[in-house]
Amino acid sequence: MMNKNQIATAYFELAKYICNALSEIDGLSTFVPDKWEREAGGGGVTHTLENGRIIEKGGVAFSAVHGEVSEAMKKNLNMKGEQFFATGVSIVLHSRHPRHPIIHMNVRYFELDENTWWFGGGIDLTPHFIREQDAICFHQELKKYCDAFDSTFYPRFKPWADEYFFQPHRGESRGVGGIFFDHIGAESGHSRAELFHFCEGLGRLFPIVYGQQIEANPIVSQPSDEELLWQQIRRSRYVEFNLLHDRGTKFGIYSGGRTESILLSMPPQASWRYCFEPEPTSEEGITLNFLRNPPDWISLK
Amino acid sequence: MMNKNQIATAYFELAKYICNALSEIDGLSTFVPDKWEREAGGGGVTHTLENGRIIEKGGVAFSAVHGEVSEAMKKNLNMKGEQFFATGVSIVLHSRHPRHPIIHMNVRYFELDENTWWFGGGIDLTPHFIREQDAICFHQELKKYCDAFDSTFYPRFKPWADEYFFQPHRGESRGVGGIFFDHIGAESGHSRAELFHFCEGLGRLFPIVYGQQIEANPIVSQPSDEELLWQQIRRSRYVEFNLLHDRGTKFGIYSGGRTESILLSMPPQASWRYCFEPEPTSEEGITLNFLRNPPDWISLK
Repeated sequence: MMNKNQIATAYFELAKYICNALSEIDGLSTFVPDKWEREAGGGGVTHTLENGRIIEKGGVAFSAVHGEVSEAMKKNLNMKGEQFFATGVSIVLHSRHPRHPIIHMNVRYFELDENTWWFGGGIDLTPHFIREQDAICFHQELKKYCDAFDSTFYPRFKPWADEYFFQPHRGESRGVGGIFFDHIGAESGHSRAELFHFCEGLGRLFPIVYGQQIEANPIVSQPSDEELLWQQIRRSRYVEFNLLHDRGTKFGIYSGGRTESILLSMPPQASWRYCFEPEPTSEEGITLNFLRNPPDWISLK
Repeated sequence: MMNKNQIATAYFELAKYICNALSEIDGLSTFVPDKWEREAGGGGVTHTLENGRIIEKGGVAFSAVHGEVSEAMKKNLNMKGEQFFATGVSIVLHSRHPRHPIIHMNVRYFELDENTWWFGGGIDLTPHFIREQDAICFHQELKKYCDAFDSTFYPRFKPWADEYFFQPHRGESRGVGGIFFDHIGAESGHSRAELFHFCEGLGRLFPIVYGQQIEANPIVSQPSDEELLWQQIRRSRYVEFNLLHDRGTKFGIYSGGRTESILLSMPPQASWRYCFEPEPTSEEGITLNFLRNPPDWISLK
């Protein structure tokens, strides 16, 4: 039976594994580790890659922290307990080329006092330009992986992502969704070790699905000014999601977490224009329409 | 005695006055008005200027809205009442040149049911590069204006701005501060008409103090890449403040306000770098030191 320290160690190894796999995809830059300690207990290693060939700015953050449940945590996370332990790996990659997507992954494990534990996590894809076949491929991979473990997971976790990654103030989804789950514990019918292996496998799947998206969109030319502008606009929506809505970001900021690790998800650059509205028939307009009226991708195949 | 409709009309005229004065400072572009209506009652006119000579992206937003106090308003604004009326002018200017500052102003008037009313507002300055003499001049102008009306205002409103525009997650102030006030009503010893004239005068002072900052920093050359990068970093902190901390932005977003008017404050472009830390003795480093250890500017003169 796995304990929390074994899970933390395995997550640390997972982060290193993912860094190596992503560095191979990038082919130019590698991740630089930055170790930090948390005064109130624990710490982490934040790996960053800047100015790569494929990845313009990417972060792979591992952390394992513990301590007393603060008032802010009780209020913001509705946590009923005194002592907590949390470990996880969190990733955001901002691709250099507008034809390559932004992608995010997170797996985490949580313990409250002696007897409460759960896993959470997810993967979601945010293309600057949405192509149906890429979104379908992405969801097929996630479904295949989930189904092999528990056929109830994808049908539960896919709509959970749709709900979580929706931006009410824009009336848009952040991207083409993916899977999202939280508070998955023993009541799922799976042991702690089994759920850990599900999360670890999801982490190992991550560089594979990112690589698929890159390969499916080979770069044949430099991006146009229009493509770059649209990328910057899409990135600004990513900023809005993470600073206005993302629970992890908000909780981290409000509870005094390590700012540079929490805001690793910020893009290298983002643009805002007043009432920017692309032509409905342009590729930008088609992407926006997908975000405003998200299809059930898997049923389109 | 002024009523709410007269105040709204005067704020609308004030917004137009400020647009004209700022267009004159810019000398190239002018503000374009965009009228909108609010389904639940009221509306506004959002004026935007993009790609000017001095102003790269600026917004002057007038609104006058009314209706029922929603659950979100009761919870987020701690409002005890059933019907509200709110009117105001809100401005953010992002200057093109890194040697010219970001500046913000807001004046607003609020009514709850029949018998509760108050004014709020403020002006604050966010230079990309802080120069002592500019910050002193800015505070002198604000103090002089406040003192002529009520000598208790600057000593109350200046520290209020220091507190409000502080970014706890960065341990930095947003800029060099200014004045901030809220819930100023009859208990201030001033009538509604008097307080309105204070707010209107503050609005008329705004283009003057912005013009002073521009004149004090004549542009003799194109910005360097280093200056432009620092401007983008400073703008990213502005984004963080407005999306993470600013009460007006949060309330607007959560209560279903008009997103494009609320996010008018976003910069044309912003950059994030992991753990960006300038040399302490560089101009960037000196600015950062001022943000982390804000002096009492007026006492430096």
